[in-house]
Amino acid sequence: MNQQRTLESYPQSMRDEVQRARQEVADLHAELPRYELVVWTAGNVSQRVRHPEVADGSQDLFVIKPSGVSYDDLTPESMVVCTLDGQLLEGEHAPSSDTAAHAYTYEHMPEVGGVVHTHSTYATAWAARGEDIPCVLTMMADEFGGPIPIGPFAIIGDDSIGRGIVATLRESRSPAVLMANHGPFTIGKDARAAVKAAVMCEEVARTVHIAQQLGDPQPIDPTKIDSLYERYQNVYGQ
Amino acid sequence: MNQQRTLESYPQSMRDEVQRARQEVADLHAELPRYELVVWTAGNVSQRVRHPEVADGSQDLFVIKPSGVSYDDLTPESMVVCTLDGQLLEGEHAPSSDTAAHAYTYEHMPEVGGVVHTHSTYATAWAARGEDIPCVLTMMADEFGGPIPIGPFAIIGDDSIGRGIVATLRESRSPAVLMANHGPFTIGKDARAAVKAAVMCEEVARTVHIAQQLGDPQPIDPTKIDSLYERYQNVYGQ
Amino acid sequence: MNQQRTLESYPQSMRDEVQRARQEVADLHAELPRYELVVWTAGNVSQRVRHPEVADGSQDLFVIKPSGVSYDDLTPESMVVCTLDGQLLEGEHAPSSDTAAHAYTYEHMPEVGGVVHTHSTYATAWAARGEDIPCVLTMMADEFGGPIPIGPFAIIGDDSIGRGIVATLRESRSPAVLMANHGPFTIGKDARAAVKAAVMCEEVARTVHIAQQLGDPQPIDPTKIDSLYERYQNVYGQ
Amino acid sequence: MNQQRTLESYPQSMRDEVQRARQEVADLHAELPRYELVVWTAGNVSQRVRHPEVADGSQDLFVIKPSGVSYDDLTPESMVVCTLDGQLLEGEHAPSSDTAAHAYTYEHMPEVGGVVHTHSTYATAWAARGEDIPCVLTMMADEFGGPIPIGPFAIIGDDSIGRGIVATLRESRSPAVLMANHGPFTIGKDARAAVKAAVMCEEVARTVHIAQQLGDPQPIDPTKIDSLYERYQNVYGQ
Repeated sequence: MNQQRTLESYPQSMRDEVQRARQEVADLHAELPRYELVVWTAGNVSQRVRHPEVADGSQDLFVIKPSGVSYDDLTPESMVVCTLDGQLLEGEHAPSSDTAAHAYTYEHMPEVGGVVHTHSTYATAWAARGEDIPCVLTMMADEFGGPIPIGPFAIIGDDSIGRGIVATLRESRSPAVLMANHGPFTIGKDARAAVKAAVMCEEVARTVHIAQQLGDPQPIDPTKIDSLYERYQNVYGQ
Repeated sequence: MNQQRTLESYPQSMRDEVQRARQEVADLHAELPRYELVVWTAGNVSQRVRHPEVADGSQDLFVIKPSGVSYDDLTPESMVVCTLDGQLLEGEHAPSSDTAAHAYTYEHMPEVGGVVHTHSTYATAWAARGEDIPCVLTMMADEFGGPIPIGPFAIIGDDSIGRGIVATLRESRSPAVLMANHGPFTIGKDARAAVKAAVMCEEVARTVHIAQQLGDPQPIDPTKIDSLYERYQNVYGQ
Repeated sequence: MNQQRTLESYPQSMRDEVQRARQEVADLHAELPRYELVVWTAGNVSQRVRHPEVADGSQDLFVIKPSGVSYDDLTPESMVVCTLDGQLLEGEHAPSSDTAAHAYTYEHMPEVGGVVHTHSTYATAWAARGEDIPCVLTMMADEFGGPIPIGPFAIIGDDSIGRGIVATLRESRSPAVLMANHGPFTIGKDARAAVKAAVMCEEVARTVHIAQQLGDPQPIDPTKIDSLYERYQNVYGQ
Repeated sequence: MNQQRTLESYPQSMRDEVQRARQEVADLHAELPRYELVVWTAGNVSQRVRHPEVADGSQDLFVIKPSGVSYDDLTPESMVVCTLDGQLLEGEHAPSSDTAAHAYTYEHMPEVGGVVHTHSTYATAWAARGEDIPCVLTMMADEFGGPIPIGPFAIIGDDSIGRGIVATLRESRSPAVLMANHGPFTIGKDARAAVKAAVMCEEVARTVHIAQQLGDPQPIDPTKIDSLYERYQNVYGQ
């Protein structure tokens, strides 16, 4: 599908939105090294651009980082545009090698507007052991509403990473999943929210790790977790 | 109370002091990411502005960070001004979601001129386990005069965080309290002193954690702790 | 050998390549403190310059960091040029004290175009215990194709470090070896690839260390490691 | 002694040297936060200025950081000049509260030209447990010639810290001592060498700590340590 299509065949409002998303996604990539979530060319951020006339989302696009480009060289122009089957629609570089996982997530979770993948150190360490991060911090209750869940082991090359992400996130309130032996994927209403989730995921992965090094953290009563999550997401309006 | 009041109803000298406090509090927020005490929009600094004519402190104000604004966007103008019951008096944004805890502390500890809250990693890890940080470093004796105490578990929404802070700090020489499963709150004679306490709290939380990872730190004789604290606070004049 | 030779006795194209390598090697040294792989003057990067007319590589040269110069003072001009027996051919400073190990590697591994040595913290910690880093992360399968192997204990002064590097790397797909009680050496098709291997070596050394602190990482099936390595090196074209 | 003396009573060449030392010591303080050895106003660097006519060193001076000044505000002019009994000779601020320990070291170790004190995290953690750092890294053999020794517990107020530093360093080849429950002091032929020792002390404290977290580092044969130290200090000419 989309083999003959180009960006010009999409509505003008959507093409304008692609331009804004190129800038936003390029800017947000700078947050990944700033918060020490990535080294070298690792990590990627994407943002969905919705089709204004096709409500089922099937004609949406997303803007993502190109493959193997240094963080110093990322510009709005170097970002690439893909269709939801993960095919390149526009861009001078190949899309990130993780594009299929982003695409699968957008295709199967229409509410998701942004996706981030990193190998951030502490989150990836939990992923290497195949363990959920338990919810023992109030900031974790606020942001994740419970544990950050572990996803299945899956390797690149087909849609198994995407399926693992979607299946795990559908069972959880958490916007982050730790793919086993691999690293975290996070989602949000837009790319900025997914980047925030990636930053907070590493922050709580590190803090709970350090807490566990010298003993057992105190559990938080599940009703308190619900109350904190409810307030932060709804009342507080984040 | 204060429903009809505006900043204009306060004495001119106090309004001038509010302006200076806006600058000081905005500047001090930059110290939090510099010392890696916060990520994203977490953390907040406030400073009391004393009413020149009402000696009991009940008409004091405080300047605090707005809610959910990025550290890159914090300016003196974006800071907000609150009364001691935690109500917004002046500001374009909503006050930090931790404002009630700051307000309670100012209301019940008239000697306190600055309050800081962070989720700094090592201090929050001790808080997750519900453990005091033992005083095994001379710099900790200097600054804290003993262990850094753990406070109760309390969640946002009423004055239970404020009550926990005040009750714990009144029993201790420490200007820092670790609220259980949450993170540190620190106080000082002004906002700068409270920021210094937040920096030193994380520094000793990290150093004592690392010391304990490979065995037991040597205790310091309590009379030596008293002597170091006395000298640093009084003779040395910090 | 080469005692009377100067850089002028080499072909012009090779002298031009030496100039480009001076710039590249100087620039790449800035990546070592950026990724926190070195402190003070520690660490060194080198790049081979191939002789266009002598196919066996015996007349190749390499450009390397001078000894004891601060990272702030490294310029293309301060880099030094050596022959494959480790002798200085051109340069105002003495070559790095690790030059013999670089030279031995270039002499015995003609496919290697770049070498990096650091004392990066986590990799050196594995080296101090004399342990291979097990391959429990997909990014490690991609980059290293298996464990990062430990090399022998060898001290500076003869070719024993070089022999240890070459003997260990020949038995492995990994571009990194951890020399016992010493630190990592990495290789690549050029200096940039060797720097990337040094960055990734520390990244996986840190992540696997942190994973092991709280339990056992889940092993990855060797056929999956082979598949990931094959794809990343060949299909994906890194 | 020196009560009536001013800097003007010293030879002109010595006063010129004081000016150079002010610049050097101010510049070197910037290395302490750069290498994350200090927070807030902690840490201090000093350098001896030798009297050209009094060979026994008793009339030497030293330049040191003022007390309680922020790292952002340290300038050559803000540095202070002291006599070897620790009294202020020239300066607008009070000398660092650690001045007595620096003075005692200069007075009793005439070969020492620079002293540095920090509370760097990992070195201070070893100090809190009262443990020597074992020599299990070749870079540690190079720089320290063996373990980094622990010094006695001593508190500020008399010359007990200075005595502990001098007594411990005289029994060791190490230019660093870990004062128990306090932190490292390092020495060198000048302030730059003492700063390098402070940087390397933290580096090896961190690396050996991390090595020990997952098992026992392999010991290095003492004759190899001797050989590495001999070469690095003499042949290699550091």
